[in-house]
Amino acid sequence: MAKTMKATLFIEPGRIALDDKPIPDVGPNDALIRITTTTICGTDVHIVKGEYPVEKGLTIGHEPVGVIEKLGANVLGYTEGQRVIAGAICPSGYSNACLDGLHSQDGQSGRHGLKPLGGWRFGNTIDGAMAEYILVPDAMANLAAVPDGLTDEQVLMCPDIMSTGFAGAENANIKIGDTVVVFAQGPIGLCATAGAKLKGATTIIGVDTVPERLEISRRMGADHVIDFSKVNPVDEILRITDGRGVDVAIEALGLQQTFESGLRVLKPGGTLSSLGVYSSDLTLPLDAFHAGLGDNKIVTSLCPGGKERMRRLMNVIAGGRANLELLVTHRFKLDDIEKAYDLFANQRDGVLKIAVTP
Amino acid sequence: MAKTMKATLFIEPGRIALDDKPIPDVGPNDALIRITTTTICGTDVHIVKGEYPVEKGLTIGHEPVGVIEKLGANVLGYTEGQRVIAGAICPSGYSNACLDGLHSQDGQSGRHGLKPLGGWRFGNTIDGAMAEYILVPDAMANLAAVPDGLTDEQVLMCPDIMSTGFAGAENANIKIGDTVVVFAQGPIGLCATAGAKLKGATTIIGVDTVPERLEISRRMGADHVIDFSKVNPVDEILRITDGRGVDVAIEALGLQQTFESGLRVLKPGGTLSSLGVYSSDLTLPLDAFHAGLGDNKIVTSLCPGGKERMRRLMNVIAGGRANLELLVTHRFKLDDIEKAYDLFANQRDGVLKIAVTP
Amino acid sequence: MAKTMKATLFIEPGRIALDDKPIPDVGPNDALIRITTTTICGTDVHIVKGEYPVEKGLTIGHEPVGVIEKLGANVLGYTEGQRVIAGAICPSGYSNACLDGLHSQDGQSGRHGLKPLGGWRFGNTIDGAMAEYILVPDAMANLAAVPDGLTDEQVLMCPDIMSTGFAGAENANIKIGDTVVVFAQGPIGLCATAGAKLKGATTIIGVDTVPERLEISRRMGADHVIDFSKVNPVDEILRITDGRGVDVAIEALGLQQTFESGLRVLKPGGTLSSLGVYSSDLTLPLDAFHAGLGDNKIVTSLCPGGKERMRRLMNVIAGGRANLELLVTHRFKLDDIEKAYDLFANQRDGVLKIAVTP
Amino acid sequence: MAKTMKATLFIEPGRIALDDKPIPDVGPNDALIRITTTTICGTDVHIVKGEYPVEKGLTIGHEPVGVIEKLGANVLGYTEGQRVIAGAICPSGYSNACLDGLHSQDGQSGRHGLKPLGGWRFGNTIDGAMAEYILVPDAMANLAAVPDGLTDEQVLMCPDIMSTGFAGAENANIKIGDTVVVFAQGPIGLCATAGAKLKGATTIIGVDTVPERLEISRRMGADHVIDFSKVNPVDEILRITDGRGVDVAIEALGLQQTFESGLRVLKPGGTLSSLGVYSSDLTLPLDAFHAGLGDNKIVTSLCPGGKERMRRLMNVIAGGRANLELLVTHRFKLDDIEKAYDLFANQRDGVLKIAVTP
Repeated sequence: MAKTMKATLFIEPGRIALDDKPIPDVGPNDALIRITTTTICGTDVHIVKGEYPVEKGLTIGHEPVGVIEKLGANVLGYTEGQRVIAGAICPSGYSNACLDGLHSQDGQSGRHGLKPLGGWRFGNTIDGAMAEYILVPDAMANLAAVPDGLTDEQVLMCPDIMSTGFAGAENANIKIGDTVVVFAQGPIGLCATAGAKLKGATTIIGVDTVPERLEISRRMGADHVIDFSKVNPVDEILRITDGRGVDVAIEALGLQQTFESGLRVLKPGGTLSSLGVYSSDLTLPLDAFHAGLGDNKIVTSLCPGGKERMRRLMNVIAGGRANLELLVTHRFKLDDIEKAYDLFANQRDGVLKIAVTP
Repeated sequence: MAKTMKATLFIEPGRIALDDKPIPDVGPNDALIRITTTTICGTDVHIVKGEYPVEKGLTIGHEPVGVIEKLGANVLGYTEGQRVIAGAICPSGYSNACLDGLHSQDGQSGRHGLKPLGGWRFGNTIDGAMAEYILVPDAMANLAAVPDGLTDEQVLMCPDIMSTGFAGAENANIKIGDTVVVFAQGPIGLCATAGAKLKGATTIIGVDTVPERLEISRRMGADHVIDFSKVNPVDEILRITDGRGVDVAIEALGLQQTFESGLRVLKPGGTLSSLGVYSSDLTLPLDAFHAGLGDNKIVTSLCPGGKERMRRLMNVIAGGRANLELLVTHRFKLDDIEKAYDLFANQRDGVLKIAVTP
Repeated sequence: MAKTMKATLFIEPGRIALDDKPIPDVGPNDALIRITTTTICGTDVHIVKGEYPVEKGLTIGHEPVGVIEKLGANVLGYTEGQRVIAGAICPSGYSNACLDGLHSQDGQSGRHGLKPLGGWRFGNTIDGAMAEYILVPDAMANLAAVPDGLTDEQVLMCPDIMSTGFAGAENANIKIGDTVVVFAQGPIGLCATAGAKLKGATTIIGVDTVPERLEISRRMGADHVIDFSKVNPVDEILRITDGRGVDVAIEALGLQQTFESGLRVLKPGGTLSSLGVYSSDLTLPLDAFHAGLGDNKIVTSLCPGGKERMRRLMNVIAGGRANLELLVTHRFKLDDIEKAYDLFANQRDGVLKIAVTP
Repeated sequence: MAKTMKATLFIEPGRIALDDKPIPDVGPNDALIRITTTTICGTDVHIVKGEYPVEKGLTIGHEPVGVIEKLGANVLGYTEGQRVIAGAICPSGYSNACLDGLHSQDGQSGRHGLKPLGGWRFGNTIDGAMAEYILVPDAMANLAAVPDGLTDEQVLMCPDIMSTGFAGAENANIKIGDTVVVFAQGPIGLCATAGAKLKGATTIIGVDTVPERLEISRRMGADHVIDFSKVNPVDEILRITDGRGVDVAIEALGLQQTFESGLRVLKPGGTLSSLGVYSSDLTLPLDAFHAGLGDNKIVTSLCPGGKERMRRLMNVIAGGRANLELLVTHRFKLDDIEKAYDLFANQRDGVLKIAVTP
């Protein structure tokens, strides 16, 4: 086996580069995965732009599909050569946060702490997936075997996009018969739409402005789609719901406007489920927030990870409950990663998700 | 029986008056209650100031303790002369919102609607409790018999203050072993403190600046009290929690500062439970909101009502689980209601709650 | 309007008869519905056999689809001539049980009590739906308007079969990615299968022995079907789940064998959701019950009712999420009700559900 | 450090013996604890009697309080010499069951499986705590630091008795204002009583026949105690609840009689929470089970473990919310362990729990 691998490094704000890096050593609780397919996330774009700071020289990317190359001495229950995925978030399982059910907020040193996002390690605090190999920590908590018969592209959304989008529907506690609106139908919004359908929402409204996205929105489960460049979405949602408002609004963009529109269409007692990654303060308008008296909830979700989550999501795919291959609009080789980022970051050519293969 | 009664009317912003009003007719689903004790709420002060608009001539007040004077033809299960209370919020039981578990957001005409607070009728959309008599609509859903042996003052907090404060603890889903902070220790904050203890919080922190309130806070269950005029409460809470933050922050004041402090002391995955009645827009600071990635929840609660809620709260009192008589600091006759409002609105003389008797 | 109507009366064990009965007077909170379609339930068969005692002369049936003929004086929000359904269970909305969220166990006289099933009135404690007219009590809590464009047969399962079957899935708290088995694929079991799919189960196993039912089971969402006359269902389920067992077993028959098989295929921590109406004591075998140490749950569900439940279920139909018309295998006129019962009670001719029209 | 230690070994049904055993080697994820105090559990008595089979030569006991003697190479966040406890149940944190929130049912080899109780390892599948030293596997998930100022006896109930008893109250989802009965007031029943109070039950009924236990029951939170040798407990509970029945019945004995009595006093919609370790099949009587139509739940709980659980329980003690030292009625040295077992197994001398010190 070679000693070095190609990896996509964060060089400085505005610049990434494919470069050589040593293939990492495998500690007793780790597993080394040879990447067969990975993909670029909107979060990576924030990192590349320098909006979310990571260390220089870090390998970016957090959505690995691959094959077990080598297992640590303590890692039982897997075999080398097995096809696996790992979630974007790698909980340890043993921290106080994990043992309390908050796996994505796994604290450093295994304890609670005010620092959030502790479970997100790939491409954040340790080397990530946009490379030939990735080292998965706490492997027994994080490696999930890919069921026979599923292709890389079929499970490529599981590590992050699908887990995050579905969490938006799950954490809103959608009930059978609910009316749900999803603001923005990018990859995560489309997964939230699919998740809302799987949770039993019977009237689903997708909001975006790109015709192709609205078309996929319908295929994911939307009963109504709204092009917000043509109509006022708040008015249109109230019209569709006969003035009742929605039980759940999912915000999948990360802007004041979508966040606030979510509040404005919510019935008293309804839930705003936010999946946005915000880059500025948000305002809760007094009227939309019912002066604090509307029995409303606002919930935020970070992508759930861990092997059990991955197992469940792959079952969704295997059971034909959602077809997320549809989101793969482009394919690049790792050697062309800089071009791929450029296309994705600039959202050219109707791109939704890019499959990258080393 | 007389044809008229004394009632405290909203005349115009800044002015109430005790005046004569006809004793209302009793419809088939109603009950007429002779008030024996009632009390003034902070919400009434907003109404009197004109900040929350109600119709001129409306009887204000929403916290009735009394005796059944007359029952409507369809009202079964009660007897005239029985001691009862009714909640500040009077759900119908039959609206879609009620049947969906959202009793406080009971919609007009028995259906969902974007208009919130539909369950609040006394002193809002119909005549209230600061009078000799009050007509209780949907009486079978709302009249709760006072257990033998409990005094008026013992149950006087049940209709609103206790129900609201406890809801702040209940809706935050406090678990055994949680750490909870309650910002502001006025009547509702003190009830939230008592509620947090009843839900199993084991480290409770009360924040206020009035020594008498901090003293009652300890009696209600606070393990620590913080005088925010002497120390920075965010720093102090982090010190007490050894840097972990709290599982639940309850905001019982209604200002940006307390709302924001709640967010700042919350652990990732924690819940901010807001009981504030706000009078301006709120800001979610980007850092305190963890850019939307902290798996946090913000929940708001309107006072739960209905006879089953009242029954449960009176059981708390009867079972000796909380002593809320402590909150009654002053007593007035209905004839002196204008003086009572003046004292309460200006928070003179260490007032917490005033018992008013016709 | 005529003074009398045709109604199907319970005469004595083993005998029903179509006879004339006065059209009931409409009290202030009632509504009189002219039945357009109704159906026969397995529970009716128990009644007719005398296994479940009701008063002689009572009109049986509890699944009304019809048109509002007359509204009580207090009933707002509806119009005469409107197409409506009412659930088999008619909660008052105002009892302590209802206000506590237990609408189906609505106590007599509006209070808790050890007597269960208090919410079930049609064909149990008051005249039922197998007639030309039915009087709906507490009409504002119970009448649900049929959405335009839905036929009687499309919504005919909502009052009981669908509400019950779905409750089996909902009360088991099925999560996305769960594996669920449903024992028995009669009308309620088929609805439980559809409900499991709507809640996000990704591996659903239907168990029965009638080929037509197994075929419909697949159409309702089953990924696997088991003919228990050909293989041992416990072994087969363990094979399908690779030895893991199921997250949720739904028991939709009412026998020791299916109840016990449910326990035997349950993973530790799993839930047995029982929809069976049992007619003898049940045994929890020590091994299948893991000596009480398996973190298992057993939940039972009585059909949820009320207009909000009906609204949600009709939305499921209107949104194309489930096609329950498939269950209507036979059609009879009310005049032929005795023949219809005979066919249904003896389960001849592949009957699932019979639509009866006056 | 010595090479051998004293340990209490299971020799054969009916016989244990204190003998020498090698002090175990410490693997990379383990910790070696020097026991300072431990205690005997009813489960140990089942083991000694041979009713629950374990391997001959195994060290029994599962309730360790001690000091860290040596940490494995990968174990971070602790220091040698630190005072700690570990739960009776040692979840790995990384199994599918753990990642799904079912820590006590942690499957072998890190996956789900039909074999229950997988999380219970001490004195079951690996050497236990009734010795001078114990090896704690997956130490980062299981070691919980004892807060300064708490004695061994104050935290001695946390590893099992308190965690189990509290789980009976928690898993029944007790709400503020609930009425709860606890059948049997042995150590676990007393903890369930304390747990019910902490969850907000306002009417708690303790049932037993030993006067000392009923006295402690009151101190733990019981509002009423019933000596079932003097009155029929079902009748008495219905009298106390004015015919309503209880919201939650907790069964803490493990017999048909208490299990069945729990069902018989349950309101429709109520929950039976079983903590019993049964040794024969159970019967669900048709009437008490409401023929399956009562919207009832039966839940079973195995002791929750893991360091976060232990942290929370020790906070309950540190916060003065429950005083479980009261349960320590006897003290023995490890050298006298055979006498201690004899006294405990025969329930002589009013024994509740015995503190054993090496």
